[in-house]
Amino acid sequence: MQDNARPHVAGVCQQFLQEKGIDAMDWPACSPDLNPIEHIMSRSIHQCHVAPQTVQELADALVQVWEEIPQETIRHLIRRENNDKFFTHPRNPKALAAYLFAHNHLFYMMELLTGVLLMVLSLCEAPAVPSLRLDVYVHATLELLALVMVAFELCMKLRWLGFHTFIRHKRTMVKTCVLLLQFVEAIVVLIRQTSHLRVTRALRPIFLVDCRYCGAVRRNLRQIFQSLPPFIDILLLLLFFMVIFAILGETHTPFWMFFKYFNTLENSIVSLFVLVTTANFPDVMMPAYSRNRWSCVFFIVYLSIELYFIMNLLLAVVFDTFNGVEKMKFKSLLLHKRSAIDHAFQLLVSRQRPMGVSLKQFDGLMRFYRPRMSSRDRFLTYKALNTAGAPMLSLDDFYKFYEVIGLKWKVSLTHCINLLVKSKAFQYTMYVVVAVNGVWILVETYMLNSGFSWSRMVPWSYIVFLTIYGVEVLLKITGLGPLAYFSSGWNLFDFSVTVFAFLGLITLAFDMEPFYFIVVLRPLQLLRLFKIKQRYRNVLDTMFELFPRMASLGLTLIIFYYSFAIVGMEFFADVVYPNCCNTSTVADSYRQINVTIGNRTVLDEGYYYLNNFNNILSSFVTLFELTVVNNWYITMEGVTSMTTHWSRLYFMTFYIVTMVVMTIIVAFILDAFVFRMNYSRKNKEPLLDPEGKSNGIVFEAEVSRDEALATLELYKKTCPGLSSLNSLQGVLLAMDRSGSSSLVYLGRRSRTKSDLSMKMYEEEIQEWYAEYSRENLPQSDRSLVERELDIPPPCPERES
Amino acid sequence: MQDNARPHVAGVCQQFLQEKGIDAMDWPACSPDLNPIEHIMSRSIHQCHVAPQTVQELADALVQVWEEIPQETIRHLIRRENNDKFFTHPRNPKALAAYLFAHNHLFYMMELLTGVLLMVLSLCEAPAVPSLRLDVYVHATLELLALVMVAFELCMKLRWLGFHTFIRHKRTMVKTCVLLLQFVEAIVVLIRQTSHLRVTRALRPIFLVDCRYCGAVRRNLRQIFQSLPPFIDILLLLLFFMVIFAILGETHTPFWMFFKYFNTLENSIVSLFVLVTTANFPDVMMPAYSRNRWSCVFFIVYLSIELYFIMNLLLAVVFDTFNGVEKMKFKSLLLHKRSAIDHAFQLLVSRQRPMGVSLKQFDGLMRFYRPRMSSRDRFLTYKALNTAGAPMLSLDDFYKFYEVIGLKWKVSLTHCINLLVKSKAFQYTMYVVVAVNGVWILVETYMLNSGFSWSRMVPWSYIVFLTIYGVEVLLKITGLGPLAYFSSGWNLFDFSVTVFAFLGLITLAFDMEPFYFIVVLRPLQLLRLFKIKQRYRNVLDTMFELFPRMASLGLTLIIFYYSFAIVGMEFFADVVYPNCCNTSTVADSYRQINVTIGNRTVLDEGYYYLNNFNNILSSFVTLFELTVVNNWYITMEGVTSMTTHWSRLYFMTFYIVTMVVMTIIVAFILDAFVFRMNYSRKNKEPLLDPEGKSNGIVFEAEVSRDEALATLELYKKTCPGLSSLNSLQGVLLAMDRSGSSSLVYLGRRSRTKSDLSMKMYEEEIQEWYAEYSRENLPQSDRSLVERELDIPPPCPERES
Repeated sequence: MQDNARPHVAGVCQQFLQEKGIDAMDWPACSPDLNPIEHIMSRSIHQCHVAPQTVQELADALVQVWEEIPQETIRHLIRRENNDKFFTHPRNPKALAAYLFAHNHLFYMMELLTGVLLMVLSLCEAPAVPSLRLDVYVHATLELLALVMVAFELCMKLRWLGFHTFIRHKRTMVKTCVLLLQFVEAIVVLIRQTSHLRVTRALRPIFLVDCRYCGAVRRNLRQIFQSLPPFIDILLLLLFFMVIFAILGETHTPFWMFFKYFNTLENSIVSLFVLVTTANFPDVMMPAYSRNRWSCVFFIVYLSIELYFIMNLLLAVVFDTFNGVEKMKFKSLLLHKRSAIDHAFQLLVSRQRPMGVSLKQFDGLMRFYRPRMSSRDRFLTYKALNTAGAPMLSLDDFYKFYEVIGLKWKVSLTHCINLLVKSKAFQYTMYVVVAVNGVWILVETYMLNSGFSWSRMVPWSYIVFLTIYGVEVLLKITGLGPLAYFSSGWNLFDFSVTVFAFLGLITLAFDMEPFYFIVVLRPLQLLRLFKIKQRYRNVLDTMFELFPRMASLGLTLIIFYYSFAIVGMEFFADVVYPNCCNTSTVADSYRQINVTIGNRTVLDEGYYYLNNFNNILSSFVTLFELTVVNNWYITMEGVTSMTTHWSRLYFMTFYIVTMVVMTIIVAFILDAFVFRMNYSRKNKEPLLDPEGKSNGIVFEAEVSRDEALATLELYKKTCPGLSSLNSLQGVLLAMDRSGSSSLVYLGRRSRTKSDLSMKMYEEEIQEWYAEYSRENLPQSDRSLVERELDIPPPCPERES
Repeated sequence: MQDNARPHVAGVCQQFLQEKGIDAMDWPACSPDLNPIEHIMSRSIHQCHVAPQTVQELADALVQVWEEIPQETIRHLIRRENNDKFFTHPRNPKALAAYLFAHNHLFYMMELLTGVLLMVLSLCEAPAVPSLRLDVYVHATLELLALVMVAFELCMKLRWLGFHTFIRHKRTMVKTCVLLLQFVEAIVVLIRQTSHLRVTRALRPIFLVDCRYCGAVRRNLRQIFQSLPPFIDILLLLLFFMVIFAILGETHTPFWMFFKYFNTLENSIVSLFVLVTTANFPDVMMPAYSRNRWSCVFFIVYLSIELYFIMNLLLAVVFDTFNGVEKMKFKSLLLHKRSAIDHAFQLLVSRQRPMGVSLKQFDGLMRFYRPRMSSRDRFLTYKALNTAGAPMLSLDDFYKFYEVIGLKWKVSLTHCINLLVKSKAFQYTMYVVVAVNGVWILVETYMLNSGFSWSRMVPWSYIVFLTIYGVEVLLKITGLGPLAYFSSGWNLFDFSVTVFAFLGLITLAFDMEPFYFIVVLRPLQLLRLFKIKQRYRNVLDTMFELFPRMASLGLTLIIFYYSFAIVGMEFFADVVYPNCCNTSTVADSYRQINVTIGNRTVLDEGYYYLNNFNNILSSFVTLFELTVVNNWYITMEGVTSMTTHWSRLYFMTFYIVTMVVMTIIVAFILDAFVFRMNYSRKNKEPLLDPEGKSNGIVFEAEVSRDEALATLELYKKTCPGLSSLNSLQGVLLAMDRSGSSSLVYLGRRSRTKSDLSMKMYEEEIQEWYAEYSRENLPQSDRSLVERELDIPPPCPERES
């Protein structure tokens, strides 16, 4: 529930009640502080004497508008829960109080911290990281505290949802069950003063995932589960061939396959499973190959089928599912926006003037929708929408609402620094500087390598280049203005690299243990080199753009890691140590003794005992190694030899789970880049200009003196005495100062994936719109007032 | 140049000359044996007394038609060379003779065999495979022989192309240079009676690639080269990060990075290069990790950037290029077909009846275009095109030409076995049988595993199931007819598995060393299980469909392997052996001695000395192991320690080359499957029915008795006495026999990728057509005769 949505709803209420002929005197127009839902629920019924049914309709309509118009709410709408969102809406004042209490950033923050605290506890619980070990009563008490907070959150939710809805909400029910279980266990631990086998700790991430700020992680998890059915199908195909080859390898070819890798069916399957990951490749073949050279055919055929065909198939299946989900998501978002705009338009036009929205009405909407927007910006936004210059906004104009709503306006500048900074000559000069710098660093490194010592001396070249970069940054900030400058990822990157280098130089100058710091940052300067080529700019820009999504995928992976780490710690803590596993085939990798080879004695150090599950940090590193796959079977065999052979199940399951997640990451990167390349090809424009010129969406609006004066008058009439009028007076002042009768303003915002998708699916969008209006046709025939009360068309059903 | 195109050209010539008012008495209509180009070149000029310019035009038009109408030729046309194809056409009788000599299957076969012989020679040249070693004078003589044959082929080409064109044809020039070089070297070898360092043998595949039948390989190579520029860009990015991290790892963090992997910049870069392939992963980290646990951050960050980001980027770039090329190829093919049809239509309609093609004309075309087609099929093809039932074929009807041309016609059957075989009950019964059989085999294998011995006894279950499958095959062949039955990949698979199993049973019954044979084939029966699920049917069917392309990609890979194997053999033959490489870090893997561990003595056998370049077969296995990547650095380091460190360049280059080829294979599989899945989703029809019901394209044509009689009369008039009329009389006989006055015929052909693409790009195709007709608009206004002489629009320019 957005704060800035509230006043808007109040405005709509007022308008609605006016049109219904109900006395709306009590409704505040310009004060955005009252809670409209409360108004409807209490005041409307008791004071305005309207029928409860009308109020119910009104509440429905308001909930719709409230949910629809703010863009953030829209984003929530497109999720699966949108259906229960309506039905989970508070229906009585008591519920409303709980709802409002549970929907603000403080509460969200508490949720998040509780989730993080519970997860972080595993650092201190036995087996703990040595330096962070806490006594049992300390960490158990902390855990109980956190669990009580979760219980409190759940109680609030219960109040707000009502018991009936609560038990029908699956995620919440799972959370409740896990909570109860953890409660019991925490109390048991506190009583016994020692930890028992607590595999259920692996379920802790559920508290984190459920919190408000982890929406992206939930989305990822959903996407992973959506990709599962086809993935499992292909996985079965993989396992099927594995079994066929295992049977072939084990039973039927005894004359050359009598080696350790294929002596039983189980070993045979395990060897072939590891072979799919290539981790044991030439080794598994070597004994057979040394006896019979043709035995390599078996392995070549197996790898060709499994590794080069079916594994790619897995990627294809996930890629395909992923693509489909993305497109559907975009479609859903788009149609919701359209439906929201349709409704807002219908609500805004009055019966007297059914053809459009006047500046006055629009300004009223904006004052509610974006209370902090200045009067100048509201006016400019109207101008940007009103491309035809007509006295009213038509519905078609209004469809661009979401495109212009986020624009930041400023006067178009054309002074000389601006021109200099935007000139080709300046850009190419900087490219040359960067290239020279790059070569210089390489040469210097080479010299360094060949004995030249520089220890604490700052090379003069470093200062020279840093000065040039500093001047560039200053020029650009002056020329483009800070807003335009910092809206480009490239400029941000330039700025931070330069600032860090400068800080490094200062620390060096004042001799504060600076060596390592500056040295780590120096090669980063080389990244500037990538501005030189268009493709690299695309790649790195996509990287900037992908970052939020990648971070959420990384978080998802970490959640899987966490669960597996807990299970691993519970079962495999302290099972491997130097010189363990002597009975296994991988004993060498765990050995740490003096070995006599010929007549020399050397320390034969196999480091694999370090890949253990002794605490959560070690577990994470071990799991990362398992993710990278190479030599993962050494860890598996080591642990297996010290426990039972059922341990292999853990490692194989982990391999499959990470394979799914990694495949989705690959599919995601693939999708993003193919999309971007297609886009640049289709539109034949460079997707971004590193100098921030055409980077983002730019709208233009020209304001003449007369217009500005008229608007100022209008505003003064509507809502006199508001300080926001100052900005509009500022426009007039600026005109006076420059002596011109009109000013050109540029509205700028960064390009989002949605903008790209709009261009990409251009044709399909027209189809979707056509389909959408066809579905909603019967309603458009009704009268306006009827439509106002209509519950808007439900979210278009997903194609499953 | 297709043989069956020739008579068609003759027909077109005749018609053309007739319309030009030139005496065409000499032109043979029904005898397809004369060579039309010869006619034009000699007879037309000397006997028909037409102006040379007209003949030139005619020749151009003919070359066009000749090239365009046969589908096989179309496929050639879409290649890049299509431009020089026209300009390499023979221009005089002498050239023509050479041209005709060099364009037939005998000559192609000779080309192929020469190429293969040259490549196979490396089995016998030192270092040879021991059992195939030949004396120097034998293999050098064989080589000279093969080279002389290549020289002969080139001479023919020179005669036919003319000197000027010959030296402008790049591929031919390269071939000539390589040939000269090889000649000189072969003679030197023969004189010295010993092989010198002959790295140039790595160029031998060029003789194979250049031959006619290896068109697919050439196409693959071209595609690989097209993907190279973006690939190299991203590769540079990869190397760039590698160097940055190498500098970080080597110079700047000496306090924990003082281990063998990072002691010099070269080692540092090599370690990080190997790390990208993950082949040395936990090992390279372990020494540092055992000193400082936080050192893992360096490796995690490096792998996250390089392995999980940039490597995926490589895949994305290749995938994208590949996709673009495929689409452009399809577009080009489609527009060429359309242009060919446009031209054929213009050539067929006469000035008297400009609105369409009559049955008589169509039959004449078909008699030239497909001389072996029966009169019945020609008639049925006409009926299939003429959906409107109008007396003439319009241009729109004619556009379907390529869709109906490959149909195989038969009478629609509806007898009881057919109904049985097509019934759902029958299908599901067979699925149940297959499932039971699958479970049975698993149970049996398990029993076998737990000690039950069956050696030579055939289990009764095997016979029972085989009988059921045999009956199924017989029923289906009877029910569907052999043609429909064998047109489905699934049926073919069923059939071959059953036949092989049956053969196995016979060998077993007659006790002819049957054990191994039957045993290898038994698990294959399990593949039938995959019919049960739709997705598997899709997957395996795609596999059938992909097979030709995969084979050509495999051949391309083998050609790369060959070149690398030759280079490897020249430089690294016999450099690794047991207990070599003691100075390297991988000495263990090459060790083969008794080692004392504690107080036990064991044979420590590192098998890696088997991964050598001692002969071409060993080299291929070694290269396959390098392709799989795991532990490849052991081979690299072993060879490097015995030669110079420049050897690493060979291994790294090989890694990069196979990465490109493998990435293209991945991209190809990905593309094919995503395409297929999109297709099934878009059209919501199962892509194939394993029972061959809707598998493929089916056209229907109903023939009434009157029609058949009228057509027979027409045919008798046009070309009397041809034996092909029998088939049409057969239709009448069949009607008499069945007693009905009409028969329904079904035309069937298997679905090709082109059919799928047609559906897939439906919307884009309309755009392309629109664009195409816009470009060709000016020409359509001219008179028909003028158009006949027009050179058709050039191949639409590729978007680069």
